[in-house]
Amino acid sequence: AIREALIAFFQPKPLSGKTVLMTAGPTYEPIDPVRGITNISSGKMGYALARALVMAGAKVQLVSGPVALPTPQGVERIDVHTAREMHRAVMLRAAKADVFVGVAAVADYRSVEVAIDKIKKAGEGLTIELTRNPDILAEVASLPAAPFCVGFAAESQNLDVYASGKLAAKRLKLVVGNLVQDGMGGDTNQVVLFDADGSHPLPRASKTEVAAGIVAHLARMLDAAANA
Amino acid sequence: AIREALIAFFQPKPLSGKTVLMTAGPTYEPIDPVRGITNISSGKMGYALARALVMAGAKVQLVSGPVALPTPQGVERIDVHTAREMHRAVMLRAAKADVFVGVAAVADYRSVEVAIDKIKKAGEGLTIELTRNPDILAEVASLPAAPFCVGFAAESQNLDVYASGKLAAKRLKLVVGNLVQDGMGGDTNQVVLFDADGSHPLPRASKTEVAAGIVAHLARMLDAAANA
Repeated sequence: AIREALIAFFQPKPLSGKTVLMTAGPTYEPIDPVRGITNISSGKMGYALARALVMAGAKVQLVSGPVALPTPQGVERIDVHTAREMHRAVMLRAAKADVFVGVAAVADYRSVEVAIDKIKKAGEGLTIELTRNPDILAEVASLPAAPFCVGFAAESQNLDVYASGKLAAKRLKLVVGNLVQDGMGGDTNQVVLFDADGSHPLPRASKTEVAAGIVAHLARMLDAAANA
Repeated sequence: AIREALIAFFQPKPLSGKTVLMTAGPTYEPIDPVRGITNISSGKMGYALARALVMAGAKVQLVSGPVALPTPQGVERIDVHTAREMHRAVMLRAAKADVFVGVAAVADYRSVEVAIDKIKKAGEGLTIELTRNPDILAEVASLPAAPFCVGFAAESQNLDVYASGKLAAKRLKLVVGNLVQDGMGGDTNQVVLFDADGSHPLPRASKTEVAAGIVAHLARMLDAAANA
């Protein structure tokens, strides 16, 4: 902690004075008291990014799904479980944020019915009806005075097509794309940054280094936007 | 670690010479590369039990679903994700075990189809067809020379009825029952032991102490069975 504080002290502070609202981790959509639908997300990339943002001088509010990670020093953490809880926590804070970064692997769908008691096994099959969850990132990006919005795209194929599509469709400023086979669960990651200028691959590195690379790119973009 | 080793050295060893095969944690049933169905289980109760079994002198093999916990000292850990992987890992080892303890929150159902690529959002609804997973505990208990089988029952209601029902239906020797609202995710637990003699409630305590209570009861039962 002393080492981190020292490094932070001597670090340049390109995001000083900026409030960054972000999400990380998976969401958990209950089916009954013991079962649910979730996404694969250790939260490591999001938490590394939260640390990098604090190091760069930002005030960081982290709305987090259930993960087994300690809260990074200097980060205000709001714990949630479902996509709708995450949506509520984000929308309460979005208008006051300078930057919004959606790293969480938000469940696109939730169970239509949530059983109050544990569903007992009965029969060979079971059908679960799902319904769409709110699209938090798209909603924040459509706000009248939207913060600078950064999305993440985890894809299993066609990363370029899907990530640039997400950039345009949700009117984001930056999308961090990665192939799920490259990053999920592990301690390293390989990502490609997509913005209005095209795509910028970052080298494979630890999630801490990748986070620093993303923050550096974000700081340059914010700087260019301020001077435009 | 030194403290644990010292305590372990002076501890009585009622399970010395016994091989205990056990499961812990949740299972994860993929729907596509980023989504899946899971159960709420931190693995804490199972891992506390694995430690208590080692302290009592047992050789412990722990087949574990995805959890964020370190492997207890002296435990052989086999990592799995799905119920079918857990089933395979257990059945490979069950014949040589003296005791089998099924603590894992095994998903009863898995998705019929697992998409190779991430399912893209499309439309307001989505239906997932599920099919039954193997019942690992019942299958181990039905082996010709079955180990002494211990089950766990996490219920949201009617604990007595469901836990004694599980004892009889799966031909188990002991069922550890708890209400999900009492234990899941937390560091303490309150359980009731169900065996042929009836029910034995243990006081609410840390998962470490509850585990020691379960092991003491198990050791008395094994001793009684050996002297019968």
